[in-house]
Amino acid sequence: MNDDPLVLFMPSGKRGHFPRGTPLLDAARKLGVYVESVCGGRATCGRCQIEVQEGHFAKHKISSSPDHISPPGAKETRYAEKRTLPPGRRLSCSATIEGDLVVDVPQDAVINAQVVRKDADTRVIERHPAVHLCYVEVEEPDMHKPLGDLDRLKAALQRDWSFGPIEVDAHLLPQVQPTLREGKWAVTAALFQDGDNDIARLAALWPGLKNEAYGLACDIGSTTIAMHLVSLLSGRVVASAGASNPQIRFGEDLMSRVSYVMMNPDGREAMTRAVRQEISKLVQKVAEDGGIARSDILDAVFVANPIMHHLFLGIDPTELGGAPFALAVSEAVLLKAEDLDLKLNPGTRTYLLPCIAGHVGADAAAVTLSEGPHRQDEMMLIVDVGTNAEIVLGNRNRVVAASSPTGPAFEGAEISSGQRAAPGAIERVRIDRETLAPRFRVIGSELWSDEAGFLDSLGQTGVTGICGSGIIEVIAEMYLSGIISEDGVVNGALADKSSRIVAEGRTFSYALCETEPRITITQNDVRGIQLAKAALYAGIKLLMEKQGVETVDMIRFAGAFGSFIDPQYAMVLGLIPDCDLSRVSAVGNAAGTGARMALLSRDHRREIEQTVRRIEKIETALEPRFQEHFVNAMALPNKVEPFPKLAELVQLPPRTMAGIPGEESNPSRPRRRSREERAARRRRV
Amino acid sequence: MNDDPLVLFMPSGKRGHFPRGTPLLDAARKLGVYVESVCGGRATCGRCQIEVQEGHFAKHKISSSPDHISPPGAKETRYAEKRTLPPGRRLSCSATIEGDLVVDVPQDAVINAQVVRKDADTRVIERHPAVHLCYVEVEEPDMHKPLGDLDRLKAALQRDWSFGPIEVDAHLLPQVQPTLREGKWAVTAALFQDGDNDIARLAALWPGLKNEAYGLACDIGSTTIAMHLVSLLSGRVVASAGASNPQIRFGEDLMSRVSYVMMNPDGREAMTRAVRQEISKLVQKVAEDGGIARSDILDAVFVANPIMHHLFLGIDPTELGGAPFALAVSEAVLLKAEDLDLKLNPGTRTYLLPCIAGHVGADAAAVTLSEGPHRQDEMMLIVDVGTNAEIVLGNRNRVVAASSPTGPAFEGAEISSGQRAAPGAIERVRIDRETLAPRFRVIGSELWSDEAGFLDSLGQTGVTGICGSGIIEVIAEMYLSGIISEDGVVNGALADKSSRIVAEGRTFSYALCETEPRITITQNDVRGIQLAKAALYAGIKLLMEKQGVETVDMIRFAGAFGSFIDPQYAMVLGLIPDCDLSRVSAVGNAAGTGARMALLSRDHRREIEQTVRRIEKIETALEPRFQEHFVNAMALPNKVEPFPKLAELVQLPPRTMAGIPGEESNPSRPRRRSREERAARRRRV
Repeated sequence: MNDDPLVLFMPSGKRGHFPRGTPLLDAARKLGVYVESVCGGRATCGRCQIEVQEGHFAKHKISSSPDHISPPGAKETRYAEKRTLPPGRRLSCSATIEGDLVVDVPQDAVINAQVVRKDADTRVIERHPAVHLCYVEVEEPDMHKPLGDLDRLKAALQRDWSFGPIEVDAHLLPQVQPTLREGKWAVTAALFQDGDNDIARLAALWPGLKNEAYGLACDIGSTTIAMHLVSLLSGRVVASAGASNPQIRFGEDLMSRVSYVMMNPDGREAMTRAVRQEISKLVQKVAEDGGIARSDILDAVFVANPIMHHLFLGIDPTELGGAPFALAVSEAVLLKAEDLDLKLNPGTRTYLLPCIAGHVGADAAAVTLSEGPHRQDEMMLIVDVGTNAEIVLGNRNRVVAASSPTGPAFEGAEISSGQRAAPGAIERVRIDRETLAPRFRVIGSELWSDEAGFLDSLGQTGVTGICGSGIIEVIAEMYLSGIISEDGVVNGALADKSSRIVAEGRTFSYALCETEPRITITQNDVRGIQLAKAALYAGIKLLMEKQGVETVDMIRFAGAFGSFIDPQYAMVLGLIPDCDLSRVSAVGNAAGTGARMALLSRDHRREIEQTVRRIEKIETALEPRFQEHFVNAMALPNKVEPFPKLAELVQLPPRTMAGIPGEESNPSRPRRRSREERAARRRRV
Repeated sequence: MNDDPLVLFMPSGKRGHFPRGTPLLDAARKLGVYVESVCGGRATCGRCQIEVQEGHFAKHKISSSPDHISPPGAKETRYAEKRTLPPGRRLSCSATIEGDLVVDVPQDAVINAQVVRKDADTRVIERHPAVHLCYVEVEEPDMHKPLGDLDRLKAALQRDWSFGPIEVDAHLLPQVQPTLREGKWAVTAALFQDGDNDIARLAALWPGLKNEAYGLACDIGSTTIAMHLVSLLSGRVVASAGASNPQIRFGEDLMSRVSYVMMNPDGREAMTRAVRQEISKLVQKVAEDGGIARSDILDAVFVANPIMHHLFLGIDPTELGGAPFALAVSEAVLLKAEDLDLKLNPGTRTYLLPCIAGHVGADAAAVTLSEGPHRQDEMMLIVDVGTNAEIVLGNRNRVVAASSPTGPAFEGAEISSGQRAAPGAIERVRIDRETLAPRFRVIGSELWSDEAGFLDSLGQTGVTGICGSGIIEVIAEMYLSGIISEDGVVNGALADKSSRIVAEGRTFSYALCETEPRITITQNDVRGIQLAKAALYAGIKLLMEKQGVETVDMIRFAGAFGSFIDPQYAMVLGLIPDCDLSRVSAVGNAAGTGARMALLSRDHRREIEQTVRRIEKIETALEPRFQEHFVNAMALPNKVEPFPKLAELVQLPPRTMAGIPGEESNPSRPRRRSREERAARRRRV
């Protein structure tokens, strides 16, 4: 029986007994609860705020009360008066334990009434950043102990902050003496600690107390670059910005960029320069929006697909263009920002998450970190649809991953009226089961096409085309209303029943929008989507076989595409396996969230590094069963999968077991083989 | 009793029992005997050569024979044929232990008949360099195990060379894939391992087998920069070069350079640039002389006094110009060469030895490492005479160090006819005890001035002045022949006896050379040497007091000055304490030797770092007894020290115990105080 007071820290749930008089900050440190502190217990930085919860917590057998903590001392009172401490908040460096306590560590400590922008993604990320601000008071020089100024600074950091050996960045050597003198022997040091060893690196130095430091979390997509500026001390997103990837001018998709490198002697250099310059502009923008100096940015995390990752690092991506798709580097990469031509603080490091495989990059690793299949028991499927779809499936026992060459059909490319998701694009479609007449919604308007004022609501844009989510819905609705068979053939016999079914050569189309510009869904469009979704589903099915499961417990759609498609329609098309619809969700820019997690906690860096080492990568092209799964998945929703949960919600057309006559319309062997060859060609460039 | 054969490695003396069939290289590794190997036991690099000693070694109870080693196998025979193995040499990676052996590890393995220049300093330095060349064969990429090329390279290095975690230099990321392919998956990696942690850093990479790597050892003096190019694999000096320190144009001595920085806004930058550029030229020169590429230079060690050290690092040395003489950094500094604007291999590191105190720099640390007072039991005094004299005194129990402001008199400055040691300078002097006539020798001639052909032997130069060693000798001879008293007064009464004694105002001079240019030793010259030697001796005496010793066992003179002065005359003057003359020696450029030791062995780096942390630094200006020792040391050889060993060799004039009359000639309090003030002013600038 321990007579010392019991202290429970929330939300971590860590607990322990401590003698009366122990500062709460010390108790937190001993338990491994991360509480920020810059001033090292001098009650001047205000970073170590906590709240005492009042009441009897029967579950924990703790009666917690504000009386069980020491009253504010002179220093804390001075801080509260000068800097304002929110009601209920205490400084854990000054408040001591005087009885049993339940202590809440707020994740949003607002310091100096700083205004922080509210981010759409309000996920709270546990913090344990690689960069620490450490305020120290350094001994003055003494002729009797002729230790250098830097050496006394290191000694002070080791004494007050329990660091082991400290390495020093070269650029600081000339700054140590003037900074110490400017700060009258009191300075704040930024210590960087990460990677395979416990060596701390002195990365930046300011006179006096420096109470804020920032980091970047950046997702370099083939199309878009997205960047968040994040406070390393509070974890809050301070500013966000996005821009098109300027490499688009060298090639629309990944493989055309690899081709550009192979064809042009300085192609790699030009693309590396382009992406770094654009990132530099985004840094400028978020720094301006956040009202901070670039030199206050002390850490940066980047995620990207393998080709973007290599080009950003200045690595020739040619090897990724053909089998065996060899990555130059797969493990996490830690560099100085200046090695990537980024002008931040000279001591700033950058961290790139590991790549999983030649087609499954650091972005997929970031999505995995964000969604955490490896952190839970249920079988989670993560699908990130782009030109290549990245697929991750697993739970805490085992995680497998693959990439499927879906092609750009889901993004509206290679579709006759397809376009990117932008104002004017049809995004929602319903078809009357009897009349076969459609109604639809268009990006930029809240109205359906059969509602009054629809055309006016579109403004000058009008209807311009159909985007990925619209294609998914229209083809699913065409299937549900009998316009296409389960094998994807547009039923020409219906031309008699509806003017929407129109003959085009030897096949038939469905006219979705009869006014100009006419938007029709052709037999080729249907075929394009069938091929894309069959590739995706075949990949998923391979992973399910590897895991030995018939069903998945939950599905996460990552990326912009996933945010707009209706999971039910995705399931009708057989894009994804049968699943309880309430367990299917879109998770938005999960890659960006994963990047923020790695930025804010080096524990998350170790977590994803270890997870990626464990992930089993399936190369779909090498799997003998891929072909069979692909053929089955050409059917809607699938030739062999029962989709029982979907059937409870949706009236699916009855299945025909026989093949469908007609040469073009039959996804026959030669046709399929040619499809795979095209996919393989795309990879090889 | 161990039945396994006993193997003794020389010169290390390490020994152990090993099962028959053990490769000798493995045995050496297990015992911690450093044997170089690049190819990792493939018998292709030839770096692991050893020799078996034949005979019965009674002391070790070993009968060693070439029969106790396996005969050359196919690989070794192929190497011997293709690359020539000197007679008696074997490759220790291939030769296995078959009986008791005494094995010699040669320190000079000459590979591929490479011609190495013989260096004056033939000291053999134990090798354990910070940079290792490691040949590996890397697995080819495999779609089923999508590890990056770099990651497979790291795995191969860890597997074959037992490395732990490996960090990778940023510049190598784009090179890994093409280098692996160029080398057909066989590459040689340079791994750098040093400092506080065991992390290895991949610093350079070549296709195939790379069998040579070089390092620089450089001593940056105020006047001269000296550089050696050293093979990191054989330890041999391949080329050497020297140049004037171009900072001389900003100020002749150290304090005038500090003044220049204080007076000129870009003074620090200009001097940093000047010294780095000169070093870069020297690199070019030694690389050309050695017939190697700059990119083959993979490590570099620099030593310098504190002000040169700071300026080289780009640190403002102003703080070193005044009390408390605060070093910006005192511990050893490890940087990338490119941080110092040195164009070597992009992965090359530089190491600067630690500084001992504000006036006792990394050069003094290098001298200490070279001479090793801390490695032995006897009390060793090391004196490095320059504008400041650095003094180190100690043994394995305790080492103390100080700097004495001797001023430039010993270098010929502030002496009426003084000059640097150069052709034309008088360097040796003898005075006839009866006639008071001198004879002397001049740099550039082997003849004494009273020998036939002397003038002709001087050529056009003639006699131009007197250098430091000449001044020491002439003043010692003046004392021994009674021209000056023990208090340094030129005896004017002798003017009657010899025309060499000449009145100049109220004092007298000694005419050493009566032809033009007339070279005379004035009373002021004598006084200047007295002041300098008194400062030096007082510093030595303080250190002896700290150590609690009355005598020292051995004396080492470091630096160019020490190489030219005759220890006996130095003792007559009382520059150094009484000591058995056979134990007094000049050690030449010991700072350069120390730099080479640190270059060739990281064990030596740790050794000097630990030693410098232990060295007690005495600030002479703060010691109350300095004054008293200084006054006593103004006398020749000393007012209170007996110098018994010297007296056995030299007929010293009888001592007078009374003070000497005459105001100017008496080193009285005001005079002495003014001297110390000047010394203090010099330090404060």
